[in-house]
Amino acid sequence: MSLSLADQAVLTLSSVNRPGIVARVSGYLFEQGCNILEAQQYDDTASGQFFARIRFNRVDDTAPPIDAIREGFETVARRFDLVWRMRPCDEERRVLLLVSKFDHCLADLLYRWRIGEIRMAITGIVSNHPIETYRHLDFDGIPFHHLAVTRETKRQQETEILGLVEETRTDTVVLARYMQVLSDEMSAALAGRCINIHHSFLPGFKGAKPYHQAHARGVKLIGATAHYVTADLDEGPIIEQDVERISHQDSADDLIRKGRDIERRVLARALAWHLDDRVLMNGHRTVVFRD
Amino acid sequence: MSLSLADQAVLTLSSVNRPGIVARVSGYLFEQGCNILEAQQYDDTASGQFFARIRFNRVDDTAPPIDAIREGFETVARRFDLVWRMRPCDEERRVLLLVSKFDHCLADLLYRWRIGEIRMAITGIVSNHPIETYRHLDFDGIPFHHLAVTRETKRQQETEILGLVEETRTDTVVLARYMQVLSDEMSAALAGRCINIHHSFLPGFKGAKPYHQAHARGVKLIGATAHYVTADLDEGPIIEQDVERISHQDSADDLIRKGRDIERRVLARALAWHLDDRVLMNGHRTVVFRD
Amino acid sequence: MSLSLADQAVLTLSSVNRPGIVARVSGYLFEQGCNILEAQQYDDTASGQFFARIRFNRVDDTAPPIDAIREGFETVARRFDLVWRMRPCDEERRVLLLVSKFDHCLADLLYRWRIGEIRMAITGIVSNHPIETYRHLDFDGIPFHHLAVTRETKRQQETEILGLVEETRTDTVVLARYMQVLSDEMSAALAGRCINIHHSFLPGFKGAKPYHQAHARGVKLIGATAHYVTADLDEGPIIEQDVERISHQDSADDLIRKGRDIERRVLARALAWHLDDRVLMNGHRTVVFRD
Amino acid sequence: MSLSLADQAVLTLSSVNRPGIVARVSGYLFEQGCNILEAQQYDDTASGQFFARIRFNRVDDTAPPIDAIREGFETVARRFDLVWRMRPCDEERRVLLLVSKFDHCLADLLYRWRIGEIRMAITGIVSNHPIETYRHLDFDGIPFHHLAVTRETKRQQETEILGLVEETRTDTVVLARYMQVLSDEMSAALAGRCINIHHSFLPGFKGAKPYHQAHARGVKLIGATAHYVTADLDEGPIIEQDVERISHQDSADDLIRKGRDIERRVLARALAWHLDDRVLMNGHRTVVFRD
Repeated sequence: MSLSLADQAVLTLSSVNRPGIVARVSGYLFEQGCNILEAQQYDDTASGQFFARIRFNRVDDTAPPIDAIREGFETVARRFDLVWRMRPCDEERRVLLLVSKFDHCLADLLYRWRIGEIRMAITGIVSNHPIETYRHLDFDGIPFHHLAVTRETKRQQETEILGLVEETRTDTVVLARYMQVLSDEMSAALAGRCINIHHSFLPGFKGAKPYHQAHARGVKLIGATAHYVTADLDEGPIIEQDVERISHQDSADDLIRKGRDIERRVLARALAWHLDDRVLMNGHRTVVFRD
Repeated sequence: MSLSLADQAVLTLSSVNRPGIVARVSGYLFEQGCNILEAQQYDDTASGQFFARIRFNRVDDTAPPIDAIREGFETVARRFDLVWRMRPCDEERRVLLLVSKFDHCLADLLYRWRIGEIRMAITGIVSNHPIETYRHLDFDGIPFHHLAVTRETKRQQETEILGLVEETRTDTVVLARYMQVLSDEMSAALAGRCINIHHSFLPGFKGAKPYHQAHARGVKLIGATAHYVTADLDEGPIIEQDVERISHQDSADDLIRKGRDIERRVLARALAWHLDDRVLMNGHRTVVFRD
Repeated sequence: MSLSLADQAVLTLSSVNRPGIVARVSGYLFEQGCNILEAQQYDDTASGQFFARIRFNRVDDTAPPIDAIREGFETVARRFDLVWRMRPCDEERRVLLLVSKFDHCLADLLYRWRIGEIRMAITGIVSNHPIETYRHLDFDGIPFHHLAVTRETKRQQETEILGLVEETRTDTVVLARYMQVLSDEMSAALAGRCINIHHSFLPGFKGAKPYHQAHARGVKLIGATAHYVTADLDEGPIIEQDVERISHQDSADDLIRKGRDIERRVLARALAWHLDDRVLMNGHRTVVFRD
Repeated sequence: MSLSLADQAVLTLSSVNRPGIVARVSGYLFEQGCNILEAQQYDDTASGQFFARIRFNRVDDTAPPIDAIREGFETVARRFDLVWRMRPCDEERRVLLLVSKFDHCLADLLYRWRIGEIRMAITGIVSNHPIETYRHLDFDGIPFHHLAVTRETKRQQETEILGLVEETRTDTVVLARYMQVLSDEMSAALAGRCINIHHSFLPGFKGAKPYHQAHARGVKLIGATAHYVTADLDEGPIIEQDVERISHQDSADDLIRKGRDIERRVLARALAWHLDDRVLMNGHRTVVFRD
């Protein structure tokens, strides 16, 4: 039997830590004819929470299909009060990309998607700028939505975006340098599935123009932060951060230029990990089982 | 009941991958009244080998002592042909430090040991230089052995070192910038438990004077490599590496100076991981379950 | 008077070090009504060579035009036997891009050029693959040349490329993951103005399939190297290098994926510095006055 | 003639930028029989300020001694209103080290000083803890001063420290993890010559317990900042910063442990650059001519 991605799945769990969870979960998978390929586990001794990510496959065709394994897992999950998800590896997650004028993150994500580095189904691109802004990018048939926004139309525009999310069965929303602050309602509606790239090493320089703030303060490193969006702007759970060395020679514009490189690689990493079920929520922090 | 380090243990495993290993191992620990605190697992799909590190504790005093749990595990291990080790967390590993003239790694390891950052019992310090070389270091009662070495006495000197290893029940030998090449016999005798710091980013510049080689080649980064010692000099399994940026301004002496910082932190990390059973051998490569 | 880029120039110098060079050069610029904006100097005490990069501007319209300043500098240069170049900052250097199947570096350079991050005039794109390979990239009118190559036609193909270089007055050739080894003749013809990105941290893994070599050796960091092309493959003067951390979990394919990010940013930096006259040759090493 | 460090000097300058400064300064050095060995210059186009660092030597014995060259430079300096300093390279700067309970930075600085990596004359060690705290460190005859401090005696204690500074002709004060906030008066008295290591990547987590703050916020990188002390706590001009990657697994205590490595290397770099006249003040930012 040749096994394909459809015979593999990722199971993520979290719960209050109790003896026997791993034994029962791994026992169940074994009984179902599955083999564990990769497993990571973390116990937050401060909060008493337990987190795990398990990638497994069906050993051969005598094993039930993934759907049935998932159904059967419900009993195990109930016993330990698990928050869980089991996702077959051939299932591409559905992603909506939001962008404003600066398109370096968008261009980068499209490139990585095209060469197969980030596996996802892009359900659409939404911008508050017209499509001409991106005339050098090949959208390759991805639906583009120009949804302009003013103070007056903000609520209306957000309703349209949420409509698109529902209509296209979008799983994850990415703010790829989308320079609009989401309303509390929209943040709540997308809780845990909306990723923003903040062009700063948080919590260093919150708010507007972080590179200008960094320049004025004379820091020697700049960074970027990918985080889940919450109502509390710039305070959502951090997924990934990175930095680059700068010097006194760098103007604020130089920081913006050097920052682009960090932003695009931090966002790409964070999104890839999210799509691969490597990021679990632990209160307002994250557990990241890095690849 | 208050649980101490003596109630915790680390179990490391490797074997040919087969379904059911995790289920059986975690099932056994659960049956013995233990709780898994931390677990990492890796399957090398190319070689078919399976590696795991599990930290667990006795849930309460109804659980058997660690010694008994270890004894009972023998049956599980035999069933899956596991290469394994179970070590209580309160047991300090016994380490012999070998050094030559340059003492920056030695000074650094002593400091980290003293403040409790690296937990180990230092069984002795061996040098081919006299104790006066280190008069600014506080050896704090650790036995010091001046074992001079010449071409003629090399075999004799190595025999003395191996004698010390046995006599002091030393578990791990660290070449903390010990500038003597070990004989094949000695390398074999210490296989998998002798760590060297190579003052280069391997395999960039093997052999003598790597910083001078790096300077002559005009590289823009220098590094250091901690690895297990094997008969094949500079080719042992790599545990950890790191680099630092340099420029055209740096002379070979500057590289040596900048290299010291990398050497000492790379060696310290590698040793800490080794002592914490985080490094498993996978052929001539390592699996490192980083902290 | 409003000063534009046309009123600024970069002067680079190298020579045997002798007292009075800086005094004479800066004296000359002052006499010509110029102001030094940025200056970096390096003396290689081992070789006795002196290197400098000076950016200056005409203070106002009473200063002669840059062309005249350059002409007059000839006398200064002769006195100290300087190897030098003076280039007005509004003059875009002419760059030919060579590429094979993998287009991540090409896509990246085009993007940076488009948003003005790398200033250059792209004189053409040459590939040994047909234009369809790059159908998702917007070449924006840049001439594309499909010059297939076989063992038999290699000499002929290189002649065609050199013809293009001459015809388009190309200054700099970039091997943006161009997977053909240049002949000695072609390397010589492009000496000091042909930049390659080597998908390895040199001299770690020369030759073919460096990521597979790195995986087999079990290194913990991978890197990339941008260097000038010389007849001695993989041995040309290094301009820039960078690395990324990997782990035992990474397959050779993962290294290739992670390597793409390093390759494109290392090549982009090296090219930008080269175009900005920040890279000077010091034997088979480089002096890089970083920004 | 054999030239020693006594024949070399470092000249640092800053002033409002005006044409001709470099020409006049380099002309003067040439007339005095000196050769420029290394020069870096930076023009802050935003503020119009000019900064330079020039290392030069007397070409032979016909040149006047450094003292006379310095005296003569006064005329040049007055003409351009330069803020300047000329220091012979054999002159060791005098440094007072302040420390509290945690001695990792102190131990590190002493080690680097001992092996000649950081050249300085240590005028004393001041602690608010008794000498027994450091019994494993070899102070090697450096005077130790236990100056306990309470809310009531703070003013008195600071007066004693400033007395020591004067008495020992101390040039630079280092707060090597000295956990007392200096009064405004003391900060003012040591302006531009007192370096602190802040155990955080500023301005991320100001104030108390930054590692606990970082842990609570769930950041993925931690850092440290070396800066000049000013009355405005945690806001002084930054000299150097660095970071290290952490993960969800790290407790606040792990951050403290990992932070020690960053703190000591950031402080050592900042101090070495300061002592080597590589750090110039540009308002509340610094210009750092890195080595």
